Amino acid sequence: MRKIGIDLGGTNIAAGIVDENGVILCKDSVPTGASRPKEEIINDIAALCRTLTAKMGLTLSEIDSVGIAVPGGVDEKSGEILFTPNIPFSGLNICKILSDKLDGRRVRVANDANAATLAEVFAGAAKGADNAVMITLGTGVGGGIVIDKKIYSGSNGLAAEIGHFVLQMGGEKCGCGRRGCFEAYASGTALIRMTKEELNTCFMSGEATLMAEAKEVSARTAFNAFREGDKAAARVIERYTDALASGIASLINIFQPDVFIIGGGISNEKQFLIDLLQPKVDAEDFARGAKKRTRLCTATCGNDAGIIGAALS
Amino acid sequence: MRKIGIDLGGTNIAAGIVDENGVILCKDSVPTGASRPKEEIINDIAALCRTLTAKMGLTLSEIDSVGIAVPGGVDEKSGEILFTPNIPFSGLNICKILSDKLDGRRVRVANDANAATLAEVFAGAAKGADNAVMITLGTGVGGGIVIDKKIYSGSNGLAAEIGHFVLQMGGEKCGCGRRGCFEAYASGTALIRMTKEELNTCFMSGEATLMAEAKEVSARTAFNAFREGDKAAARVIERYTDALASGIASLINIFQPDVFIIGGGISNEKQFLIDLLQPKVDAEDFARGAKKRTRLCTATCGNDAGIIGAALS
Repeated sequence: MRKIGIDLGGTNIAAGIVDENGVILCKDSVPTGASRPKEEIINDIAALCRTLTAKMGLTLSEIDSVGIAVPGGVDEKSGEILFTPNIPFSGLNICKILSDKLDGRRVRVANDANAATLAEVFAGAAKGADNAVMITLGTGVGGGIVIDKKIYSGSNGLAAEIGHFVLQMGGEKCGCGRRGCFEAYASGTALIRMTKEELNTCFMSGEATLMAEAKEVSARTAFNAFREGDKAAARVIERYTDALASGIASLINIFQPDVFIIGGGISNEKQFLIDLLQPKVDAEDFARGAKKRTRLCTATCGNDAGIIGAALS
Repeated sequence: MRKIGIDLGGTNIAAGIVDENGVILCKDSVPTGASRPKEEIINDIAALCRTLTAKMGLTLSEIDSVGIAVPGGVDEKSGEILFTPNIPFSGLNICKILSDKLDGRRVRVANDANAATLAEVFAGAAKGADNAVMITLGTGVGGGIVIDKKIYSGSNGLAAEIGHFVLQMGGEKCGCGRRGCFEAYASGTALIRMTKEELNTCFMSGEATLMAEAKEVSARTAFNAFREGDKAAARVIERYTDALASGIASLINIFQPDVFIIGGGISNEKQFLIDLLQPKVDAEDFARGAKKRTRLCTATCGNDAGIIGAALS
């Protein structure tokens, strides 16, 4: 079986031909040029699909289906993109338009975070799972839900806004307008804020900290200093992982999935992060007496997740 | 189609014969006698099924399936009751045992809150929905999740512990051992606590309040005084519905279901409660710009929910 997966990003359009196990057989990418008219972008997507097909010595009729992952809300049933903030595709029935340009191949659309979660279930950290929940810790907190090996996107295509449940009523202001969202405590942006707050406290008290040596505070600053034994960094990491683990345990109590996956930039801390989180999650998971418990891990599909997930959606 | 639904409670065993639309054709109940040996209880359940069948002029061979709703964790696939705190059935494969006593009829088991949610989807407030989430506000906060018209119970049968996501890190102590769970702010018990706290404040400041006239503070005390225009009660209801709406909006952001159902004792406030919650939820729902939004309502199946949901599970 040969499927095409397209990962439509604000900067690049990446696409690949994927087999039924989620293995990418060949891939390529072109710049999105998101400020161009939508027709030009769509033509580039279609051309990329034809290029890949030709590269594999195939014709489009030998492609079983095409999937496209989009950073925004989609209606999987109708094929419409509901909104996508950084690409001029809001309101577009991308499935119909692309299908017409690809000799009538069936085209599906998915939200990119949902597609990435599906990729982890078929070809990554959650291989073999029926039910999986993923959070991506980056500038914000994204998420995806897979139930019975299928993307769950709710009744309007907008489910899995996992960054936007309240962890602290009246707490930190969130980008979404609410206060106290999980995102405001678990994102890379939140970790940077906590690091800066701790640096300020150290500055006021005169406590030395390795974190002060960073040219620019990033989501890695506290983790790196913590590994060197820095006490102030330990306080930042404790505070950050307390909130992150609390949110993860909450989601596990709601979903009890086979696997809970952490993706995004902060997941590069890999097993080091998992080892910090596991005992905190264990202590808060409601099913702590259960025979079968959720496995916590970091994502492994990396930049290919969108292509794989789109192809298999 | 004729199905038997059994609602196994700590006090009574209620059962009914239910058609494919979730309509109860006849029903009956017997005391559970939960302190008796399990064999006696099981024999009573089987006898109740035979009584109902005879009452309808049917034989067991004319019953398509049997379902039993249990207050505890269950493994729907294996048919085992994982734990049920108040009935001596933990570890029992209730499906196999009951099937043997009912001439080999297929028996299914479900958690009672999950079964109640399914009942609302087939025969109650969420009729016609594909995806629904329900919370029951009573002594604690229970919950159920229905996805694609099927109960979602996670990978270990213990999902939908919707009362136990953290709404306030480090907040009120919850019965589960964590701090700040939704249950600790949204249950009837929490409302009683808030009412008592406000009564105490009034007592200290000398403010008059109708709530002081209640012989015993219940979950109705503040609602009743609020309807009479009592200012202290208004503060209690504001605080309670703020927290309840925040939790509901969080769950809607995660699931975006067709319908969000409120059940349990507090749902007797019906449209009065919904009217208080709707603007608060609307303001916090991430999908506020979406064409299709979650409908918020109270449960309608009442005490029959367990029977109907068990039959259709």
